[in-house]
Amino acid sequence: MAELGRRGEFELINEVFAPLARGHKLAFGLTDDAALLRPRPGSDLVLTKDALVADVHFPAHEAPDLVARKLLRVNLSDLAAMGAEPVGYLLALAVPPELGEGWFEAFAAGLARDQEEFGLALLGGDMVATPGILTLTLTALGEVDEGQALRRNGACEGDLVYLSGSVGDAALGLLVSKGELAELDREAANALLDRYRLPRPRLKLGRALGGLVSAATDVSDGLVADLEHICWASGVAAVIEATRLPLSSAAEAALVLDPALRPQLLAGDDYEILATVAPAGEAAAVAAAAATNVAFTRVGEIRAGGGVTLLDGDGRIVEATAGYRHF
Amino acid sequence: MAELGRRGEFELINEVFAPLARGHKLAFGLTDDAALLRPRPGSDLVLTKDALVADVHFPAHEAPDLVARKLLRVNLSDLAAMGAEPVGYLLALAVPPELGEGWFEAFAAGLARDQEEFGLALLGGDMVATPGILTLTLTALGEVDEGQALRRNGACEGDLVYLSGSVGDAALGLLVSKGELAELDREAANALLDRYRLPRPRLKLGRALGGLVSAATDVSDGLVADLEHICWASGVAAVIEATRLPLSSAAEAALVLDPALRPQLLAGDDYEILATVAPAGEAAAVAAAAATNVAFTRVGEIRAGGGVTLLDGDGRIVEATAGYRHF
Repeated sequence: MAELGRRGEFELINEVFAPLARGHKLAFGLTDDAALLRPRPGSDLVLTKDALVADVHFPAHEAPDLVARKLLRVNLSDLAAMGAEPVGYLLALAVPPELGEGWFEAFAAGLARDQEEFGLALLGGDMVATPGILTLTLTALGEVDEGQALRRNGACEGDLVYLSGSVGDAALGLLVSKGELAELDREAANALLDRYRLPRPRLKLGRALGGLVSAATDVSDGLVADLEHICWASGVAAVIEATRLPLSSAAEAALVLDPALRPQLLAGDDYEILATVAPAGEAAAVAAAAATNVAFTRVGEIRAGGGVTLLDGDGRIVEATAGYRHF
Repeated sequence: MAELGRRGEFELINEVFAPLARGHKLAFGLTDDAALLRPRPGSDLVLTKDALVADVHFPAHEAPDLVARKLLRVNLSDLAAMGAEPVGYLLALAVPPELGEGWFEAFAAGLARDQEEFGLALLGGDMVATPGILTLTLTALGEVDEGQALRRNGACEGDLVYLSGSVGDAALGLLVSKGELAELDREAANALLDRYRLPRPRLKLGRALGGLVSAATDVSDGLVADLEHICWASGVAAVIEATRLPLSSAAEAALVLDPALRPQLLAGDDYEILATVAPAGEAAAVAAAAATNVAFTRVGEIRAGGGVTLLDGDGRIVEATAGYRHF
């Protein structure tokens, strides 16, 4: 590839990225054509791959360590939604000429910090020059006991719909990052901004829900859109009650200032876990969630049919999808 | 993501890409947050990730099916160099607005064709909109018997350096694609162009060499550059004799027309296997290669020290690297 500052690709990989691979006994310090991984016997491997594009998924001027951590975390959120434990990741960077060494060092520092927090290591990857825009792709690998992965396709009529944490903070945080919501007090604004910049993958909750839920996904496209995915995969419909949606105090404060922002609650980037639970298993699922110290709130239920309906406090339809065909 | 032609991302994935996942019993038709893979007991998993950028790694107007096949094959070449058998892949596309449905359909058709040829299936991935340039990232997964992966770090002083197939065709083919080498006869020009457009990952050869070579890599950056990687990982030096380099008849014809093109032989994109073999194991390695019907030619030897030296027919140094420090 083209020179990156003073150092070429080989030096950059060796000096900046190879240390991120040292935590894994089979990554070989990125010296081979490919990475090796010896899966734990009796486990299924869970693989997910998400791409982030500068100016689309994060501001191009965002701090590199935050970009790195967001990239890792959106992928870890997919592992969380399958109930998997993170093992490692591969990274591909398409790098525009203007990025200097300092950017890579800060980016790698962000990865190092989150590797430590979530217990995984860099296994390999690729770095190429682009005349276009910084584009980051990450493939995350996790392990789950054989046959125990949480799936999207098991929701049944009568199941209850549960959501972890709170909804809408990241979407409101994006508005804050654009200079909107200027009247919001500083603490609330920072809380929302933080949720937008740094997703919290619900890995402990995902693992705790193994065997206790009928379907699960993470909320990235938005609560209604992601519940629609479960409905489509399971061949069912869902009803959500807007008044049940769990809101942070910061989101509550933002909605008091501007009630017209309410649709932002469904705009996505929440990286919470959305799960369906059979009534008979509700107590066990709620107890398992409580043991991980993550809020777990009933927001609706599964019905026969297709599509997702959102009802207000008076039972009026706020929004409805008609299922896959018209999605 | 933004609309792609008439269809949204969900429809596009469901209608165009999901069929590519049906060959794999654990890919679930791309309906979940992540893919599941149950590794064969007693195997190590081999993982590689390469990115291609339009206008950098392929012409932006290249036929989409060829782009797809090249993307898959450059990754399969990494698996080949580790001696692995392909299992599946994940795909991430950053898509500029001008690409229409027809592009995706042709791209998927190319993937389908090579999946069939190489025996693997789409496991999952991501598709995002970009205001920039088409950027494709693929993570390929393979399996190899536990502990049997070919590595770069085992070359020893006195080992012989072998190269599969022929060198330089792809680099000369790139020149043909740019309208150079116009005097070359049509058949030779097409042969070179074909090698540039469609790498041939040496998967059978890589598997056949298991246990028979001391180090291996694929030639992507260029013969000297990739041998340098082996030398660095193994702590040795290498000498290559230019007169031993295996050339196709098309490359010979091109060099007769323009001898100044000789340095192009080392420009990379060959996707051949470069391996080092202990003298005692030479006969067995050569026989194993012959059984896969791929030419396997001795091009040099491993010595003590560091760096790669290329000698001409009179033993004069044509090119030399000084090892990692000055690389």
